[in-house]
Amino acid sequence: MKHYTSIQDIDSLPNWIQEARALKAAPKAFKNLGADKTICLLFFNNSLRTRLSTQKAATNLDLEVMVMNFGSEGWALEYEDGTIMDQGTSEHIKEAAQVVSQFCDIVAIRAFATLTDKEKDEAELVLNGFKKYTSIPVVNMESSVGHPLQALADAITISEQNTKARPKVVLSWAPHPKALPHAVANSFTEMMLKQEADFVITHPEGYELNPEITKDATIEYNQEKALENADFVYVKNWSSYKDYGKVINQDKNWMMTKEKLGSAKFMHCLPVRRNVVVEDAVLDSDQSIVIAQANNRTYAAQIVLKKILEHLI
Amino acid sequence: MKHYTSIQDIDSLPNWIQEARALKAAPKAFKNLGADKTICLLFFNNSLRTRLSTQKAATNLDLEVMVMNFGSEGWALEYEDGTIMDQGTSEHIKEAAQVVSQFCDIVAIRAFATLTDKEKDEAELVLNGFKKYTSIPVVNMESSVGHPLQALADAITISEQNTKARPKVVLSWAPHPKALPHAVANSFTEMMLKQEADFVITHPEGYELNPEITKDATIEYNQEKALENADFVYVKNWSSYKDYGKVINQDKNWMMTKEKLGSAKFMHCLPVRRNVVVEDAVLDSDQSIVIAQANNRTYAAQIVLKKILEHLI
Amino acid sequence: MKHYTSIQDIDSLPNWIQEARALKAAPKAFKNLGADKTICLLFFNNSLRTRLSTQKAATNLDLEVMVMNFGSEGWALEYEDGTIMDQGTSEHIKEAAQVVSQFCDIVAIRAFATLTDKEKDEAELVLNGFKKYTSIPVVNMESSVGHPLQALADAITISEQNTKARPKVVLSWAPHPKALPHAVANSFTEMMLKQEADFVITHPEGYELNPEITKDATIEYNQEKALENADFVYVKNWSSYKDYGKVINQDKNWMMTKEKLGSAKFMHCLPVRRNVVVEDAVLDSDQSIVIAQANNRTYAAQIVLKKILEHLI
Repeated sequence: MKHYTSIQDIDSLPNWIQEARALKAAPKAFKNLGADKTICLLFFNNSLRTRLSTQKAATNLDLEVMVMNFGSEGWALEYEDGTIMDQGTSEHIKEAAQVVSQFCDIVAIRAFATLTDKEKDEAELVLNGFKKYTSIPVVNMESSVGHPLQALADAITISEQNTKARPKVVLSWAPHPKALPHAVANSFTEMMLKQEADFVITHPEGYELNPEITKDATIEYNQEKALENADFVYVKNWSSYKDYGKVINQDKNWMMTKEKLGSAKFMHCLPVRRNVVVEDAVLDSDQSIVIAQANNRTYAAQIVLKKILEHLI
Repeated sequence: MKHYTSIQDIDSLPNWIQEARALKAAPKAFKNLGADKTICLLFFNNSLRTRLSTQKAATNLDLEVMVMNFGSEGWALEYEDGTIMDQGTSEHIKEAAQVVSQFCDIVAIRAFATLTDKEKDEAELVLNGFKKYTSIPVVNMESSVGHPLQALADAITISEQNTKARPKVVLSWAPHPKALPHAVANSFTEMMLKQEADFVITHPEGYELNPEITKDATIEYNQEKALENADFVYVKNWSSYKDYGKVINQDKNWMMTKEKLGSAKFMHCLPVRRNVVVEDAVLDSDQSIVIAQANNRTYAAQIVLKKILEHLI
Repeated sequence: MKHYTSIQDIDSLPNWIQEARALKAAPKAFKNLGADKTICLLFFNNSLRTRLSTQKAATNLDLEVMVMNFGSEGWALEYEDGTIMDQGTSEHIKEAAQVVSQFCDIVAIRAFATLTDKEKDEAELVLNGFKKYTSIPVVNMESSVGHPLQALADAITISEQNTKARPKVVLSWAPHPKALPHAVANSFTEMMLKQEADFVITHPEGYELNPEITKDATIEYNQEKALENADFVYVKNWSSYKDYGKVINQDKNWMMTKEKLGSAKFMHCLPVRRNVVVEDAVLDSDQSIVIAQANNRTYAAQIVLKKILEHLI
């Protein structure tokens, strides 16, 4: 594998999960794999879990880590070809991407959706710009349309907690005061469609995700019905895809509660707004596995970096 | 020792000072103590000395260091229980603290007083939130009410410079254009009350520190009288504690001068405003030991990290 | 060599270039030279190439790297002597510089020209403040008047690409929407005057650089004539020096084009505004060596750090 920009880059999910769990048991087992190599973590948006877990994973493999916040420490990049750059952008992605690749062996990038321009968001300007103009491997630390490190951590977590041959997994939309991207929901959906799972997506009408991504998934507008006999319930807000980036409904009845959850495990990528997305009683119960998910971010990143390093050598 | 959040966590001050001075003589003597372990430095406020000295101390012990500016690189945290989080805060301290502890072995935190809400400041929401919700050791890099790494560096510095069995140490308030926290003054007071010292606090009326902290200290409103025969004079501004966070007096007569200082050593935690808090003639003289204090920040942090690591293993 | 603050600190340019190219061939050859030593990179302005290349170079020599953004992570410094610091500045350069030197063995500093006060800019307050008040080596990562790491990378790049005993090198001004500093143009001029080269500077009248720096250089106001038979064309915008910091002309005819370039190699320090400073056809052609220049930033920094470390030991 060269890049890890979507979960389609995973060649064998069961093997990856098994290897990630082995890394979790012995994080320093491949300590020399990254020796004398450098990873650059480029943040175009803020981050807590992704920042720390990716840095930790890289360090476990002895990679040198250079962290850069492109917004506050750098300047605005241009993505269009042929522009006369006499306005706000100071450097073209063509140069920036080539330059970054002079100083490191792997580049990991976080660049969220703008939620204002669907076409540009779907073109993944930052991520694809780096893929196009560098020769080095590119890792997606959440882009406009996907968060494959999160989805891999989610798959690892389900594998650890699951007791059934074919668990029922529900992705349930939740209300939120702000317009949020689709990346986590997209990648989780793609991941569940790759697994042995009875997978259902539930959300109010109008919150349909990109139909290209959900075409093999079951969509159930009745949350109560969707949650019946669920083993894992992944709760997440996203803004409208059709009415792109808009908050069209904040119906509090979609908040996850202990009662609705039944005996299922509760999942969320975090950060989560308590008593808006999910009530305290869920997060504070043993059924919540959100901290285990966060912990597995390290091993998701580490298996990705391990695969990339093995390919590089 | 598990945490280092106040100077009450020091079990034997003479031993710690002796060990810190030994570390200063041989900073790499315990190089392997932190191997394969990680410390996360979380800054909710700006920092120069604390940032660099703590990073340096950690590196001397071979700890991996992850630095994060929570304000600019992260988002606002919620500290209240039971809140409906539909306003400005994006993540609860419960999750944030547990998550950070997944990626590191020690967490060090800087979170200043707001100076607007005494009750909240005294509750030490950030520091105590991390203590409550993580299982890993927590180090205080200046909180609302204390700066125990600074006070430890001060004690080391006094031990190096002192020639008397019982030196006279004066903490003298100074004017400042902005409202400043009480943390440094509090921790220095607590530290001096733990030592063999004739300790006097002097400030204009109305600038009394928290009486819980100063109850065993001598307070003298007459600065001239307080400074008589002083061996060490620690100058520091703080805002009113009674009229919480207010600047009630900027009397320039309280600025430290060469004449007032006599033959005492001059101490300050830095940054210091020249010719407001203290005149140039003091800072530029041999009597100023502020750079020695700054240098000892490294060994104060290093002895703390060493104690924590020894406890961890 | 103790400091590297201008290219006048290079004792033998041919030797340095040869050594830098040897480091490029074997970046880890002197891996232990920086062991147990620390470099602090202090940024008063944003950076991409300088940030990553200097960090990479330091790591190649096993130096510990501490990066600090003084603006966002620290506070405003005072540079004047004798000021009553009751306004916006919180710490004097005297203290800041001495303090930083307690925590590291080398300090590298980026502090751009303000372009509003020629006298202050030429006094190099930040860089010279650190030189004056610390005992440790100081490296210039671009100051008000010079960018000697860039100029050294440029010289390495020319040495790699040059096929003539005495190449013709042209520094050609280009239009830009914003007022930019003179640092790159100054240091490149000084560097070319140190080399075997037929060196010509071309710019519209009114854009004369500091005559102290260009006194041994040929200035030709006719761009076409200047570019005749050029082997290397370095394009760069700068604001007026005479009418200090002003944009007095944005004549688009000065943009570099494929036609004007002839068969010369195109150089630029980056970031570059496409189709303002230079047309796409140049940057996207084989004649552009801007990425090679960026890559050599690592080895320019590394030879500088190597020389400093050899002097330290």
